[in-house]
Amino acid sequence: MVLTTVFFGINLSMRVILPEMKELIAGKKKRALKKAASYFEPADIAEIWSELTFDEQLVLFNVLDTRFATDIFEFLKDDQMLELLSNISTARKKDIINEMSPDDRTDLFAILPEQETEKLIPLLEEEEQSRARELLAYKSNTAGGLMTTDFITVPEDVTIGQVLRILREKAREIDFIQYIYVVDKVSRLKGTILLKDLLTTSPKRKANKVMDTTFTSVVLDMDQENVAHVFEKYDEPSVPVLDKLGRIKGVITVDDVLDVITEEASEDIYRFGAAGVTDEYLSANPFLVARKRVIWLIILALAGFISGSVLEHYSFLLSNIITLSFFIPILMNTSGSAGTQAATVVVRGLATGEINLADIWRVIRKEFLIGVLMGIIAGVITALRAILLQGDIMLGYTVAIAMIIAIIIATSLGGILPILFKKLGVDPALMSGPLIATILDTTTLLIYFNVTMLLLWNI
Amino acid sequence: MVLTTVFFGINLSMRVILPEMKELIAGKKKRALKKAASYFEPADIAEIWSELTFDEQLVLFNVLDTRFATDIFEFLKDDQMLELLSNISTARKKDIINEMSPDDRTDLFAILPEQETEKLIPLLEEEEQSRARELLAYKSNTAGGLMTTDFITVPEDVTIGQVLRILREKAREIDFIQYIYVVDKVSRLKGTILLKDLLTTSPKRKANKVMDTTFTSVVLDMDQENVAHVFEKYDEPSVPVLDKLGRIKGVITVDDVLDVITEEASEDIYRFGAAGVTDEYLSANPFLVARKRVIWLIILALAGFISGSVLEHYSFLLSNIITLSFFIPILMNTSGSAGTQAATVVVRGLATGEINLADIWRVIRKEFLIGVLMGIIAGVITALRAILLQGDIMLGYTVAIAMIIAIIIATSLGGILPILFKKLGVDPALMSGPLIATILDTTTLLIYFNVTMLLLWNI
Repeated sequence: MVLTTVFFGINLSMRVILPEMKELIAGKKKRALKKAASYFEPADIAEIWSELTFDEQLVLFNVLDTRFATDIFEFLKDDQMLELLSNISTARKKDIINEMSPDDRTDLFAILPEQETEKLIPLLEEEEQSRARELLAYKSNTAGGLMTTDFITVPEDVTIGQVLRILREKAREIDFIQYIYVVDKVSRLKGTILLKDLLTTSPKRKANKVMDTTFTSVVLDMDQENVAHVFEKYDEPSVPVLDKLGRIKGVITVDDVLDVITEEASEDIYRFGAAGVTDEYLSANPFLVARKRVIWLIILALAGFISGSVLEHYSFLLSNIITLSFFIPILMNTSGSAGTQAATVVVRGLATGEINLADIWRVIRKEFLIGVLMGIIAGVITALRAILLQGDIMLGYTVAIAMIIAIIIATSLGGILPILFKKLGVDPALMSGPLIATILDTTTLLIYFNVTMLLLWNI
Repeated sequence: MVLTTVFFGINLSMRVILPEMKELIAGKKKRALKKAASYFEPADIAEIWSELTFDEQLVLFNVLDTRFATDIFEFLKDDQMLELLSNISTARKKDIINEMSPDDRTDLFAILPEQETEKLIPLLEEEEQSRARELLAYKSNTAGGLMTTDFITVPEDVTIGQVLRILREKAREIDFIQYIYVVDKVSRLKGTILLKDLLTTSPKRKANKVMDTTFTSVVLDMDQENVAHVFEKYDEPSVPVLDKLGRIKGVITVDDVLDVITEEASEDIYRFGAAGVTDEYLSANPFLVARKRVIWLIILALAGFISGSVLEHYSFLLSNIITLSFFIPILMNTSGSAGTQAATVVVRGLATGEINLADIWRVIRKEFLIGVLMGIIAGVITALRAILLQGDIMLGYTVAIAMIIAIIIATSLGGILPILFKKLGVDPALMSGPLIATILDTTTLLIYFNVTMLLLWNI
């Protein structure tokens, strides 16, 4: 049974026994139900949660012991958590929130209405109440908002034997322990000891002789994106969070950072697609989604009027040589794509840290050269179309020159603009693909008409 | 000194003492140099590596003891590793590659020319040689390619006391230990024991009574993207890798998955920007970058010819009412942007798993409605331009209707096409923003001209 979860991928096996679970729930076979559930990971049960009716969810949840029920609870989606919470007894609520890990509990409190949170906090054990309020005060996208307060500190002057004793008392409460934190009398972090090193160190040695003093740490108000960069750089399983005085306030584990990295990547992608940042899509109200997107669409439409005006300004050219208009879509489209390509790479490079502000000249040189190479190829293709379909060599020549210049401008601007945005303190991903394309529509039309006047009109 | 690394961000402090380091290197003050380096994390030293001259790098590297030097070496960039490796003595090479963690060593071997790797493998300790060859055989983007072979197994029938003894022997070799793996006589994984639980369990209990049998695991050939999903779902610090017979072959730790998530997000972003996938940008040859991008640009340009042909087909409309052409950029641009917005959200949702193939109807319904809402707003704005600037109410009416229909088609196609791609087994991110925009150029022009003929031409 265990190995099915291994071999058939992520959630197949839980789904396979779902009918069986539903039967056990219907028959109120509590012991068998508990046993069946115990074969699975909490995350697996949370994943099929929505396939149970609400009554089934309640029966199952109340059958399980506090530890296991809490583990499942922590994996549920926000709305599932809230629904469950408002339908279980106060006694059960108390058990669950006391069992929850401090960081998950803070996330729960943060999505509850304030008066609900105020009702729940008094249910916590006394020492937890002030900790809970403290954690709630940190912004959710900072180190303070990510950290858990479940970690183990020991005084500097204890022996490793004493550390082991402290650890035995507290180990049960904490899911994963990687480091023991050695602190001075006012909780300032002095060093770290790896859990595994406790096993190979003489119990008589002093903690402050064994500890590693070159630990990596972050401060409470560090942005979560920078926290993620610290983890990516140092390959640490967990990092302590210090206040401005160097006192340890919490610990961030790398699994919390996984979500941050995915979330930040999604944000960048949504911004770059000019789609506005949304937490959820499928369950979101279409009016809200439309509102977020339409702001960008209006900005783009207004910016697009400029290219309309350029067309209007040069309409004498179009009315005289109507064939010119056939090449407008291909020119706009190709230069817009070339600009988006360049911006994609630069926006991503700025996000991952591969590209820095200081690299602007390297980017310009590179994109200029790329523009020349791609422009020549796209220019030749467009010229061939003009020559083969319109039978007009001079037109082909004109269109090719316009295309080459337009693409050089496109790749160069696509590379520069995100860096300029970053220099101005604006998120470079706001220089989105559609925005680049809109800006390039105008430059491309100007290039096209001016090249035409120079080469075609004067002849 | 330690706390400067904490408070001044990621790499400031190392840079501050860089001149001092260079002086120590120049003066060949080996002891002082070793001491100065010991205050820093290997990752910090690796970060400023390129600011040392090659001779300075060699002096520093050879001064440090094997452990610390190897830690730095593992954080270097590929080209820095190769350069260093070809300039140190064989004895030093031997020490370093024996000290390296098996997964980092495999990555090194993978970037070396094969004859180089064949020279290095015999330098490994004998038991490591076959393991190294085995690891090299796994594809780098699978679980087998990500895993390390540094992990601790114990037989089923030992006591916890014996487990502790085994652990004390092996703990030094392994950086981070979270789980002890309990295996049967043929290495099949039977259960896991958390390192911290060893501390609170009686030494007399049997390992197979204490172990957790509902562990999460992955198989050797699982794609790295799916491995990342397993970590995201189960919040585990490490996951064992099994072969088809259930034998444990390695362990993947979550820090290796961080890189995978960033890498996969980058790949998706590059594809969606039609920029082609590149490992590195700044150091890449512009000709190679241009080659990757130009393939897409040619495809897009050829697809763009279709919209050129549509324009040609309806040119009688344009030559009669030249004002019609002024609205072509805004229509193409706005519908292209609306389509990109929808595709952005759906492509990302498919990548993170929020959207599944089964959700296609929900996506269509949602995007259709969003298209109606945004189409009306964009239509009104465009109509106003036609009425105010061209003073033509009928033209405004025509343009507005065309805009509404074009945007509904845009959001719907933007939502559907990536899902269809996925259904066909193609990477949905290949339905890139520029490709969607190109497809929509044609549909938008067709809509525009047909609406015009229906409403404007017949009057």
